[in-house]
Amino acid sequence: MGVLLRGQEIMPIPAVTHPGTGQFVVNASFKISVTGKCDFRVSHAVDRFLQRLSRRTGIPLPNLQNDSAPNFVLTCDSGGEEIQGLEEDESYVLQLTSAGARLQAPDPLGVLHGLQTFLQLVVQGPNGFAVPAMTIKDHPRFPWRGLLIDTARHFMPVAVMKRNLDGMEALKFNVLHWHLSDDQGFRIESNRFPKLQQFGSDGMYYTQAEVRDVIQYARDRGIRVVPEFDVPGHSTSWFVGYPELASAPGPYQIERGWGVFDPAMDVTKDSTYKFLNDFIGEMAGLFPDRYFHIGGDEVNGKQWKNNPQIQDFMQQHGMKDHRDLQAYFNKRLQEMVSKHGKIMVGWDEILHPDLPQEIVVQSWRGQKSLAEAARRSSRGLLSSGYYLDLMFPAVRHYGVDPLSGSTASLAPEEKQRILGGEACMWAEFVTANNIDDRIWPRAAAVAERLWSAQDVKDVDSMYARLQKTSEYLDWLGLKHNANHRLMLQRLRGSSDIQALETLAGVLEPVKEYFREKTGNYDNTTALNRLVDTVHPESDIARQFRGLVDRYLARSSTPEEVQQMRIRLAQWRDNDQKLAPVLQESPLLKEIVPISRDLTTVGATGLQALDYLDHGGRAPTKWRHQQLAFLNDAEKPQAELFDMIVPAVKKLVQATSSQ
Amino acid sequence: MGVLLRGQEIMPIPAVTHPGTGQFVVNASFKISVTGKCDFRVSHAVDRFLQRLSRRTGIPLPNLQNDSAPNFVLTCDSGGEEIQGLEEDESYVLQLTSAGARLQAPDPLGVLHGLQTFLQLVVQGPNGFAVPAMTIKDHPRFPWRGLLIDTARHFMPVAVMKRNLDGMEALKFNVLHWHLSDDQGFRIESNRFPKLQQFGSDGMYYTQAEVRDVIQYARDRGIRVVPEFDVPGHSTSWFVGYPELASAPGPYQIERGWGVFDPAMDVTKDSTYKFLNDFIGEMAGLFPDRYFHIGGDEVNGKQWKNNPQIQDFMQQHGMKDHRDLQAYFNKRLQEMVSKHGKIMVGWDEILHPDLPQEIVVQSWRGQKSLAEAARRSSRGLLSSGYYLDLMFPAVRHYGVDPLSGSTASLAPEEKQRILGGEACMWAEFVTANNIDDRIWPRAAAVAERLWSAQDVKDVDSMYARLQKTSEYLDWLGLKHNANHRLMLQRLRGSSDIQALETLAGVLEPVKEYFREKTGNYDNTTALNRLVDTVHPESDIARQFRGLVDRYLARSSTPEEVQQMRIRLAQWRDNDQKLAPVLQESPLLKEIVPISRDLTTVGATGLQALDYLDHGGRAPTKWRHQQLAFLNDAEKPQAELFDMIVPAVKKLVQATSSQ
Repeated sequence: MGVLLRGQEIMPIPAVTHPGTGQFVVNASFKISVTGKCDFRVSHAVDRFLQRLSRRTGIPLPNLQNDSAPNFVLTCDSGGEEIQGLEEDESYVLQLTSAGARLQAPDPLGVLHGLQTFLQLVVQGPNGFAVPAMTIKDHPRFPWRGLLIDTARHFMPVAVMKRNLDGMEALKFNVLHWHLSDDQGFRIESNRFPKLQQFGSDGMYYTQAEVRDVIQYARDRGIRVVPEFDVPGHSTSWFVGYPELASAPGPYQIERGWGVFDPAMDVTKDSTYKFLNDFIGEMAGLFPDRYFHIGGDEVNGKQWKNNPQIQDFMQQHGMKDHRDLQAYFNKRLQEMVSKHGKIMVGWDEILHPDLPQEIVVQSWRGQKSLAEAARRSSRGLLSSGYYLDLMFPAVRHYGVDPLSGSTASLAPEEKQRILGGEACMWAEFVTANNIDDRIWPRAAAVAERLWSAQDVKDVDSMYARLQKTSEYLDWLGLKHNANHRLMLQRLRGSSDIQALETLAGVLEPVKEYFREKTGNYDNTTALNRLVDTVHPESDIARQFRGLVDRYLARSSTPEEVQQMRIRLAQWRDNDQKLAPVLQESPLLKEIVPISRDLTTVGATGLQALDYLDHGGRAPTKWRHQQLAFLNDAEKPQAELFDMIVPAVKKLVQATSSQ
Repeated sequence: MGVLLRGQEIMPIPAVTHPGTGQFVVNASFKISVTGKCDFRVSHAVDRFLQRLSRRTGIPLPNLQNDSAPNFVLTCDSGGEEIQGLEEDESYVLQLTSAGARLQAPDPLGVLHGLQTFLQLVVQGPNGFAVPAMTIKDHPRFPWRGLLIDTARHFMPVAVMKRNLDGMEALKFNVLHWHLSDDQGFRIESNRFPKLQQFGSDGMYYTQAEVRDVIQYARDRGIRVVPEFDVPGHSTSWFVGYPELASAPGPYQIERGWGVFDPAMDVTKDSTYKFLNDFIGEMAGLFPDRYFHIGGDEVNGKQWKNNPQIQDFMQQHGMKDHRDLQAYFNKRLQEMVSKHGKIMVGWDEILHPDLPQEIVVQSWRGQKSLAEAARRSSRGLLSSGYYLDLMFPAVRHYGVDPLSGSTASLAPEEKQRILGGEACMWAEFVTANNIDDRIWPRAAAVAERLWSAQDVKDVDSMYARLQKTSEYLDWLGLKHNANHRLMLQRLRGSSDIQALETLAGVLEPVKEYFREKTGNYDNTTALNRLVDTVHPESDIARQFRGLVDRYLARSSTPEEVQQMRIRLAQWRDNDQKLAPVLQESPLLKEIVPISRDLTTVGATGLQALDYLDHGGRAPTKWRHQQLAFLNDAEKPQAELFDMIVPAVKKLVQATSSQ
């Protein structure tokens, strides 16, 4: 604060920014007028914009329509499409001068995006709240920038969906991919087949009125809603109410565990197609978007193999394996989806020569299937590398580009078929409590990858802006920080969480599929431990690693060395405060050793610094002892990594070479 | 945590609690069944209850209706009234044993209350989350326990109203008094008289659909909604669209400032009554509650005095002053309100022998008018002493009893006419950003006063439970802590707010009407300064004052003395970190001297402790110098009090007598 930010410091970075002179001050006489062909989305967006700007600044900003002397003029050249389309022009031009501001766009979508850019630019400057003068000409790199939210494995109430749509709007995401059915739950009301939700949801599903409400909420924010109903596998929850759809006799129960399961639809029976046709018809009427996701992933073929009738069918049709049978299913499915006016989207397993080109392939396995799709004139979306549930740091997602690897060598017209990508929030280990923390702010790194130019890839800049973005999302009502704090309070049993926060601040949950593979989890497990509470990425550890690297490269300032020492001392001394607390709570007992180890990690780091500061080598025995301890401390305990350890190890290792 | 709380530690304290043995463990097999005549409110409440319990514990708790083996059985003896009434029995019996729980009530309202009690009892114990075994027999002391929210002076969006209704439900408040019109705004859509909202609201009003939504939300939570339309004064906003209603010619503008203003309705014209009759008819149809608040406060009579026709009218009718004219108005108004099926409520100015007994008088001036009302067989509500906007500490509101002072000496049947009271949140200095922080947790002290037995008045117990209540309200989504933190971040321009928090933690806003009287405020003023951000009551200062008192009474433990010293040293050293930050932000510049003074306050306290610890007197000159400084530091700066100063003064004063 104090220093006005420049336009390059927002997220995602705009295409072109020309700095201006001075600043546009936001005060009580701020007034908007809307001209041109802007639609209701723009008037709703202006309402939200004023409320947020007022909230961000504390300045009362009533929405005075038709008022004289506006100083922020919005213009749309057209009213946009009835159903938001992939082809709509999302560009905008935002001119900010000390005299006033103008936002011009060919389509309401551009105005929506420009308003988000404006909000992120507001800072407290020497003359009060203001935006720096500049001109921004912005447009997205990819037309499909999505976030998948899995509401099947853990149900997410409408309020969770809405606040995440607010976050998506801020980051210029434009597709909510709503994963609505899976083995563990069927989450939408069907009037045609009510036993789907009655038996397949444990009572946790969205009514059609709620779905319409979410779709409208998304449309207001320039976000399309693409539903996914995963078939023919991942469909146990359908079979609880309708066992006749399955390839093996029932009865079926809702699947409680995590993994890939055998149940699959019997795709050889006409009655299955009759059911799906009616169901898709009902859902096609509910979801206005042109695209319809049928899943299609991870069919293991076991139920098909064990069903003689299905085996006969395959033989009669000359099918050599379950992939052929799934291709047959997908072809008939695609015809139905198309008949109901939709374009079929599916995971990369659906790629098959028999399917028409118009399908869209979403790759969870890598750029290779996208390149394959593009070469056969189908379009593709990247999700491989964007799985937020794997708990990787933002930098890892940031480095994944839809047009790198196999897709980098595509011809220009083939590259056009790579529509963009989607960050994915699979929900085995998230609840309404911690889902925001697993999505935000890391999803913003994916948002920038999909919106900004390909050469925007400075990692330090990304992290600096990610921090600002995280704070901004707090103001929008996202709960990544608020619920994190509440969950720490829950573990602690009071609001006195300082020592627990110090420990939590250096920890990260285990990565990839570690918990699924080693733990005993299902959807009845409470997700209330420290591993469920800590942020996926430790900012403090990342910053500390940076300090250590600069120190070892002999480029630290004295203040930075001092900062390292303060941090290490804080970690060394933390267990003294925390240990008595941990004994009191059953949920915290498992972290007793991690907290105790942190003392040693901190002390070891300080000791190493002492050796290094005095230019001397440490005794070999000391070094070996410490490294043995640190190698141990580097391993996960209670499904948590202490992310300080690798940096302290570097310090200790350095004591041999000084 | 770790130690299970007893039933006496919730808020408000139940009427009767019998401790039991063991605990009722909450785990994934927790199942509710509802029997008896419970209505939709109970089924909605069960949904909310399970969501909250799941949120509080992290345990998945699907709402499995008709499931076998419930371990929490709810029973209502009746379905309750169509329109929630004052006479409904709100009592409940909650039996908690290690084998299961039962909640039994004569009316759904009791079940709603009992569920709130259960939620507050859940803690983490040695066997996981649990409630201690006990039997609670509970009922309210007063049938009318209200919270007034003024949405006229600053508009509050529906989301603000809803989350405060959640807080009210938790504290067993049962009336939302919705102050919907005043000089500064007319906040509801009228179809009959649309110029009311079109010209009187700056575009900030509730649509009738929103009003119905809020009423339904409240009803679901056992809360009645009583609208207030303040007439014949406090009504400038009506006259912007309908100047013919006023007693002096227009045109009128929405009033921007705070205070008591001259405009008043012309209560001598039949057209005014025609208008009001139609308006009340429309609103009586929208608000189902049996009571209808017409305001009636603070008519200064100036417009009436200056209008010759009104003066003639008064003379013709033998009226000696504006009070007589207002009584005439109130009588005609009461007839209209009654004709539309409602009972009239008004502020204590409406008390007049001509009005029928059925009116309800709400006293903002003291228990005296309530006693007067009760003696003439009218009913009364206390709000004097419960004004949350005056920034008094919780203990001050806690000490005010509807049946103390003038009402204490009423006969038993007269006391019955004191229906209860209402905490009042007048909105001159609150926005959606900080209103939660001005209401909560202090309103809980009023809630307890109105629900619990008269002899529940242990202040230390109240504060201990208020702290727990505040943490609990965080989980419900109240923003008293979350927005406080965001507003500090806004002032600071980043999330690095530790030093600012240390300062803010010892400050309180100026009290009573200080800001109105000395500042230059209106509804266009930004409320984004530190005075708008700090909590109304400093817990840290209160605790520190307690430490000092115990120290001076020679009853401190060594740990407590150590704690005092740590705190004082922290305050002494804070400005060093904070001063550079304050220079950067225009909004923080005004607190430079307060931050600097805190250094001296801390150092002085430590110095005094040194003298006192060594049993010696301090030099008289030192003492005088320090007291001169402290007397100065005790005065408000930037509309903020440093609440540590009085305690440090005590320490310094004590150095003369040791």
